[in-house]
Amino acid sequence: MYSRLFETEFFREEPVLEETKRTIIALDAMGGDFAPAEQVKGAVDAVNENPGIAVKLFGIEDAVKAELAKYQFNADQIEVIHAPTVIETADPPVKAIKTKKDSSMVRGLFAVRNGEADAFISCGCTGALLVGGQTIVGRIRGIERGALAFMVPSLQGPVLIIDCGANADARPEMLLQFAQMGSIYMENIVGVKDPKVGIINIGEEEEKGNMLVKETVPLLKDCESIHFVGSVESRGIPEGEVDVAVCDAFVGNVVLKMYEGVSSALIKKIKDVLMSNGKTKFGALLIKNELKDMLKEFSSEAYGGAPMLGLKNLVVKPHGNSRSKEIKNAILQCEAFVAADIAGKIAGNIVVKKSQED
Amino acid sequence: MYSRLFETEFFREEPVLEETKRTIIALDAMGGDFAPAEQVKGAVDAVNENPGIAVKLFGIEDAVKAELAKYQFNADQIEVIHAPTVIETADPPVKAIKTKKDSSMVRGLFAVRNGEADAFISCGCTGALLVGGQTIVGRIRGIERGALAFMVPSLQGPVLIIDCGANADARPEMLLQFAQMGSIYMENIVGVKDPKVGIINIGEEEEKGNMLVKETVPLLKDCESIHFVGSVESRGIPEGEVDVAVCDAFVGNVVLKMYEGVSSALIKKIKDVLMSNGKTKFGALLIKNELKDMLKEFSSEAYGGAPMLGLKNLVVKPHGNSRSKEIKNAILQCEAFVAADIAGKIAGNIVVKKSQED
Repeated sequence: MYSRLFETEFFREEPVLEETKRTIIALDAMGGDFAPAEQVKGAVDAVNENPGIAVKLFGIEDAVKAELAKYQFNADQIEVIHAPTVIETADPPVKAIKTKKDSSMVRGLFAVRNGEADAFISCGCTGALLVGGQTIVGRIRGIERGALAFMVPSLQGPVLIIDCGANADARPEMLLQFAQMGSIYMENIVGVKDPKVGIINIGEEEEKGNMLVKETVPLLKDCESIHFVGSVESRGIPEGEVDVAVCDAFVGNVVLKMYEGVSSALIKKIKDVLMSNGKTKFGALLIKNELKDMLKEFSSEAYGGAPMLGLKNLVVKPHGNSRSKEIKNAILQCEAFVAADIAGKIAGNIVVKKSQED
Repeated sequence: MYSRLFETEFFREEPVLEETKRTIIALDAMGGDFAPAEQVKGAVDAVNENPGIAVKLFGIEDAVKAELAKYQFNADQIEVIHAPTVIETADPPVKAIKTKKDSSMVRGLFAVRNGEADAFISCGCTGALLVGGQTIVGRIRGIERGALAFMVPSLQGPVLIIDCGANADARPEMLLQFAQMGSIYMENIVGVKDPKVGIINIGEEEEKGNMLVKETVPLLKDCESIHFVGSVESRGIPEGEVDVAVCDAFVGNVVLKMYEGVSSALIKKIKDVLMSNGKTKFGALLIKNELKDMLKEFSSEAYGGAPMLGLKNLVVKPHGNSRSKEIKNAILQCEAFVAADIAGKIAGNIVVKKSQED
């Protein structure tokens, strides 16, 4: 009798324990420049590295399973869920989310909404993901807009640029919430105590800026839950003048892509210099390893996926051209994010206007 | 009798010839981080290099003359014009131009307006210079706003960013004119035939962008006098995808300062790498000269001053922290600019709306 009880308990408890322990990540296996191959490899590498993670791969079953067949992994940790269509980069975002109900992106977003997954990761069309994130997963009560938060390297540690993708035309109240959400993220995920928040501007003097910035500055000054340090010129970002740089998505996108563009142009020029003659070629040999390490660390892609802050659950957008390594990192990163309960902290700390509360 | 006639002719003709030949540059000797010392040295170096240039130095006479006393130069080529006050960076631009009538900046601008100089150069407060340029020198008929055009290096030659300082909140019609003016500049000053014009955007697809960009794109497409190639992401600028990149001044400022910021952060990191151990230090010795040359060539300050396009006469803004070398280059650059008659070409080519013509 004891042994039967033990057995029953054992068999009943074990799977339950496993399920509650594991963080479940829904992954869009079809979104991204190198999908599904790199997506599947990234998922396999992630579950092999961390037994506490399970991945649900959303995509065209045959294609995904063909990739999966190449690897060894614990079958408990990966599940394939068939989604016959794919949202393409060229699809208009709102229409795509509305009509492609059986796409890998929409099905993955619904998995998060319905509590079947803790997070959704997609390297697919950013516009569609932003629309889908807000309409399917839904915004936290009081949040006007979700924002894509992207971390870039600086001379003094990472800087969070928020917003980088969702709101090309933003209003001051939205930027205020971005500042609060970014601050919560940097404090809880990166561990920066009392993060310095700045607004990206064309000068540090108070009278400078466009209308959006001029109207936003007083709101940021009055907000007691953040450590607002004023305007920051864009050159202050690589210098690490602030921990959180607030801007509308148009400016955020320009900043991010200048990071990529200037770095890669300069690195190309440096390579040309190193290859220019016999003397420099020998010099190149002597500095190669150290230079490579530094460039990897100072890359705009050093910090993996960008979370969409302000949603009820976690949605993460890695770069469209991510390889398996970046995808693996994005999956592993989700565990820390889920554990820190960023959505809960945002919900608890965000300033909600009276009119929205009623 | 013959000899007297010859003498008279000789004495009458010689100074007249000199005056018509020389390009006269008015220089704000008090504006800039290192004024008047670097300004004066830059002027001396410019006139010593080019006998066809004369410089009028506007500033506090004693201070300017004390600097001038340090150098050798042809006295015919430099004149000091006393201006007892200085417009400071902190001064509100409109008020400064209105009230500081005897400042070096206002007096210099009036010299250009009144035909006493062919161009005005100031490293002082950009905001005041932009206000003064438009109100004192005046806009070309039909031009809605003047724009600061800044040239940056790319992997495929210089790219002109317009606007970089004058209009943080721009309208579509203004961006259309910036595109036309930038195109004329690149063709006539830099010699780029049929320059490729792009609008800075957050993606290359037509439906992307903020409202300003979406409303501007059709105007650029319809404009027959430019070679519009569509949207360009900011990373396409260092890659040299276009010759002229059109944007509002807020975005232009962000682009320019990201150029400076990312380059200087990356160069700092590279220096750290080179100094990290004995091996890399030896490697550094072997690549030092070639690296220095490349960095100088790929600097955001490689192309000297930014002209303010759309004005009746030439106004140029070099970087506030310019040293004598940059100031000398800005002065020498003016000669080519005046010779090319950019203002005349803009006046002749700009699309003027019917309502403005009446």
